[in-house]
Amino acid sequence: MSVKGVALYTFISENKEEISIQENEEVLIFDENSVDGWFRGENTRGERGLFPASYVKVIRTRSNSNVTDCSISPEGSLGNDSSYFLSTPNTSLNSGRIYDEDDYDDWDDWDDGSTVVEDGDNTRGPGANGHAYQTQLSNNPNVHYRSKSASGQDGMSSSRKGSVVGRNLNRFSSFVRSGVEAFVLGDVPMMAKIAESYTIEMGPLGPRWKENPQPFTCSIEDPTKQTKFKGIKTYISYRVTPSHTGNPVYRRYKHFDWLYNRLLHKFTVISVPHLPEKQATGRFEEDFIEKRKRRLILWMNHMTSHPVLSQYEGFEHFLMCTDDKQWKLGKRRAEKDEMVGAHFMLTLQIPSEHQDLQDVEERVDNFKTFAKKMDDSVMQLTHVASELVRKHLGGFRREFQRLGNSFQSISQSFTLDPPYKSDALNNAISHTGRTYENIGEMFAEQPKYDLFQMLDKLSLYQGLLANFPDIIHLQKGAFAKVKESQRMSDEGKMDQDETDGIRKRCRTVGFALQAEMSHFHQQREVDFKDMMQAYLREQIAFYQRIVQQLERTLRMYDGL
Amino acid sequence: MSVKGVALYTFISENKEEISIQENEEVLIFDENSVDGWFRGENTRGERGLFPASYVKVIRTRSNSNVTDCSISPEGSLGNDSSYFLSTPNTSLNSGRIYDEDDYDDWDDWDDGSTVVEDGDNTRGPGANGHAYQTQLSNNPNVHYRSKSASGQDGMSSSRKGSVVGRNLNRFSSFVRSGVEAFVLGDVPMMAKIAESYTIEMGPLGPRWKENPQPFTCSIEDPTKQTKFKGIKTYISYRVTPSHTGNPVYRRYKHFDWLYNRLLHKFTVISVPHLPEKQATGRFEEDFIEKRKRRLILWMNHMTSHPVLSQYEGFEHFLMCTDDKQWKLGKRRAEKDEMVGAHFMLTLQIPSEHQDLQDVEERVDNFKTFAKKMDDSVMQLTHVASELVRKHLGGFRREFQRLGNSFQSISQSFTLDPPYKSDALNNAISHTGRTYENIGEMFAEQPKYDLFQMLDKLSLYQGLLANFPDIIHLQKGAFAKVKESQRMSDEGKMDQDETDGIRKRCRTVGFALQAEMSHFHQQREVDFKDMMQAYLREQIAFYQRIVQQLERTLRMYDGL
Repeated sequence: MSVKGVALYTFISENKEEISIQENEEVLIFDENSVDGWFRGENTRGERGLFPASYVKVIRTRSNSNVTDCSISPEGSLGNDSSYFLSTPNTSLNSGRIYDEDDYDDWDDWDDGSTVVEDGDNTRGPGANGHAYQTQLSNNPNVHYRSKSASGQDGMSSSRKGSVVGRNLNRFSSFVRSGVEAFVLGDVPMMAKIAESYTIEMGPLGPRWKENPQPFTCSIEDPTKQTKFKGIKTYISYRVTPSHTGNPVYRRYKHFDWLYNRLLHKFTVISVPHLPEKQATGRFEEDFIEKRKRRLILWMNHMTSHPVLSQYEGFEHFLMCTDDKQWKLGKRRAEKDEMVGAHFMLTLQIPSEHQDLQDVEERVDNFKTFAKKMDDSVMQLTHVASELVRKHLGGFRREFQRLGNSFQSISQSFTLDPPYKSDALNNAISHTGRTYENIGEMFAEQPKYDLFQMLDKLSLYQGLLANFPDIIHLQKGAFAKVKESQRMSDEGKMDQDETDGIRKRCRTVGFALQAEMSHFHQQREVDFKDMMQAYLREQIAFYQRIVQQLERTLRMYDGL
Repeated sequence: MSVKGVALYTFISENKEEISIQENEEVLIFDENSVDGWFRGENTRGERGLFPASYVKVIRTRSNSNVTDCSISPEGSLGNDSSYFLSTPNTSLNSGRIYDEDDYDDWDDWDDGSTVVEDGDNTRGPGANGHAYQTQLSNNPNVHYRSKSASGQDGMSSSRKGSVVGRNLNRFSSFVRSGVEAFVLGDVPMMAKIAESYTIEMGPLGPRWKENPQPFTCSIEDPTKQTKFKGIKTYISYRVTPSHTGNPVYRRYKHFDWLYNRLLHKFTVISVPHLPEKQATGRFEEDFIEKRKRRLILWMNHMTSHPVLSQYEGFEHFLMCTDDKQWKLGKRRAEKDEMVGAHFMLTLQIPSEHQDLQDVEERVDNFKTFAKKMDDSVMQLTHVASELVRKHLGGFRREFQRLGNSFQSISQSFTLDPPYKSDALNNAISHTGRTYENIGEMFAEQPKYDLFQMLDKLSLYQGLLANFPDIIHLQKGAFAKVKESQRMSDEGKMDQDETDGIRKRCRTVGFALQAEMSHFHQQREVDFKDMMQAYLREQIAFYQRIVQQLERTLRMYDGL
């Protein structure tokens, strides 16, 4: 179905297939599902063709957003098909993310005056605060949105109706869906035996996850095309080798996807890295497989570096199981895991140190400001780096090749008057021409060695950062419950015991969030240092190669 | 007056003042006089602004070309004001050259079936052969056209009406105007005493000018703004120092222009280098002065390297005279010089070796093919290099600066969560940002060190090459006279003596042209070798500086 859009940036067509669009120009998009990051559509001059999806903002009319939201049933229940939501971010071909109404204020301040949010609060439309930021995000095809996980907790949250603190009526708020509301309100019964346990300790900069006592890494190699059903179905299999066993297992994208959905389901307060996109079309297949491999490696590195995620039983199963029957058993066990969502909160061991909730609030606000700005910067750098790739493949290559062609043409003309054809000079000029044609090709090749890697890492961070609004939401929601219960206690409407319980459980949420923030920062430092160093090294090597080429060429003029 | 034009290339606006035009788009040009190489006009989308004059071909309608031609009086006589024509190429602000009808076939084959060309032959319009090539030439603002010199010979050519060989009725043909027709037909009386003498000798590759026995070079330095009439008039004075005297003289552009016009008047068969353009407007004054100085230096180098031009008395006067009164006397003497045009041919001493006229014809045809292709290639390289300058100042700078900005933005975001602000890493990333901003500036500065010099030299060669069609014309015309006289002699209509005289004088023209071709090739080898070496050296230095900048930046990440 065609939708309208507006160009955020000017794009100049560089190929026959493409059309130019001007900043602020209204465009018609024939199919909202972009292919390899490109929309097909029409500009105001009536030209039809491709333009980059990330350059355009889709204009959502009222009826469009209803279409998007229709999978949420009017009763406010997600129904049983939670797997639809779970798989959405990776199977969707949409360039933007699908928002339902209450996503608009993900970066907004928590409305702690009221915990009752009108279902389908229509005042939070595109004009609400934070929309500009969301709009920006939604234009990047690499950003997925944290999916609506753990809807299965819905039933559980109403298992104990005794608490007098009001419950959110908005069943889609992540605070409710994640089970954190139920946990904070004490609706989740402590279980007799909890096999899992994750410890939060106080580090010099604040709470942090206790390191995995058996740290390991994991390689992903050798993507191989496999066929099934006598060649009707093809898929890619990756060799996955964890360092602590050294035994390779072979996994398909669907196995990664299964694991990813388990992680989303279970680890409410953790920023689970997004999987790279599923392939959209068969075009550029080799490049795509290579790119997905690179991004799966980054995904895996984040998994193994995370003290909690790396110790998850389902992950262990994914990394080690080689037997088909065992695979199915382990899969079923993971899917039946009860310590998910709200119950996962019960597995956390927090430090005994007292933290003032106001201080936590402030820490979280700082992080929120930081994360928003970092998200903006990562987006900006992604945009610039993508554009630079395009320039390397297009403009830069073309300019140097044209220069090379012109030198060749000069050299050819010099051969046309035989007695004066100056062979040695002609050769040197012709060689110079080839050198510049070659430099053009080097420019076109270079992104493979530097910008692609940068974009891979930025994409990982876009995913990680996109999770934080929801996670911060949880802590904000918990904090609001504390304030509300304190007020009720002050008015004599609630036992102090219950208020204390809520406060204590809110502290757990705060510690978990801070540990996750800390882990994020720690990884960010390592990752961005590596990214910048790798980029600079490749850039130096690149310009050195150009210098070498030119030096060799200059020597051809010696002694003429 | 507005004229229509059509875009030869697509131009993308990069500044507010500019407008984009598409290849083949019709445009309106508000003023045909380009300013600094830019037209002001309107595109088909109704946008108004600047676009490069060289990207557009002015469409000449019948009435427009009449305007251009109107200075030629209907009687077919140039009148007395030959100085108007002489100064036209340098004072005109037109981006193209002014053609009169018979210029269209400058690169055409000589029509040797008939020497009588209808006056105002309207069949040679834009559709005639060779037009495509001329059209291409006319779009380059740096190409001047050889002016209509030596019209003063007109009277002389009819001084002896005795010859039975037909005369061209087209008084505008360069063959007639240059006096070469008169010379070949023997209409120019040998004078008793000829003070000047230029020798053509046989070199290993054919006829060549005998070297100037006192070779010298000449520097042009220190362009200084001077004022006159209490500051109402300003002009630039250059310090001109010939190496053989070591005494500086101070010359203005108008002195160069005077000399240039003397050269055109006198040296019919020599490719006189064009002067650089006169200043169009006061904008970018400093850059313009610098550019004109560079180009005057190249002009001067060609003058001093030329065995004939460097020995010209008027040039000696220009280089040495320091006294005001002497200057006027010498100027008058040069203007009264009788050995110009047809008479200049009498000063040539040719070798005694026999050259078959058919062989000469073939040599000239080869050179013609070569010169046309070289002209095309020089034009192409000029176009590409100009575009590369624009990319350096625009696209390249912008891309690197954007990358730099994005790194800075990343670094800034990292400072926002104080306990985790990672100062050393932030500094390194911020420094990387500044490095890329700096690299952007380096790209913008680089053309000053390489492409500008290349464009200067290409501009000189465009001028030299643009002279050759007319010069080749002379030889073709002379050869046609030989054939015609031989036919008449065979038919008993002409004395064999007269035929032999025509053949002998035609040989002189052929030797002179070959000597000039030889000099051109010799200089071309030197100049293009120098140009390519200089360009490569600057390019190497440039990329080395980038490598150094990046290496320094990379070291900031050490030990983090």
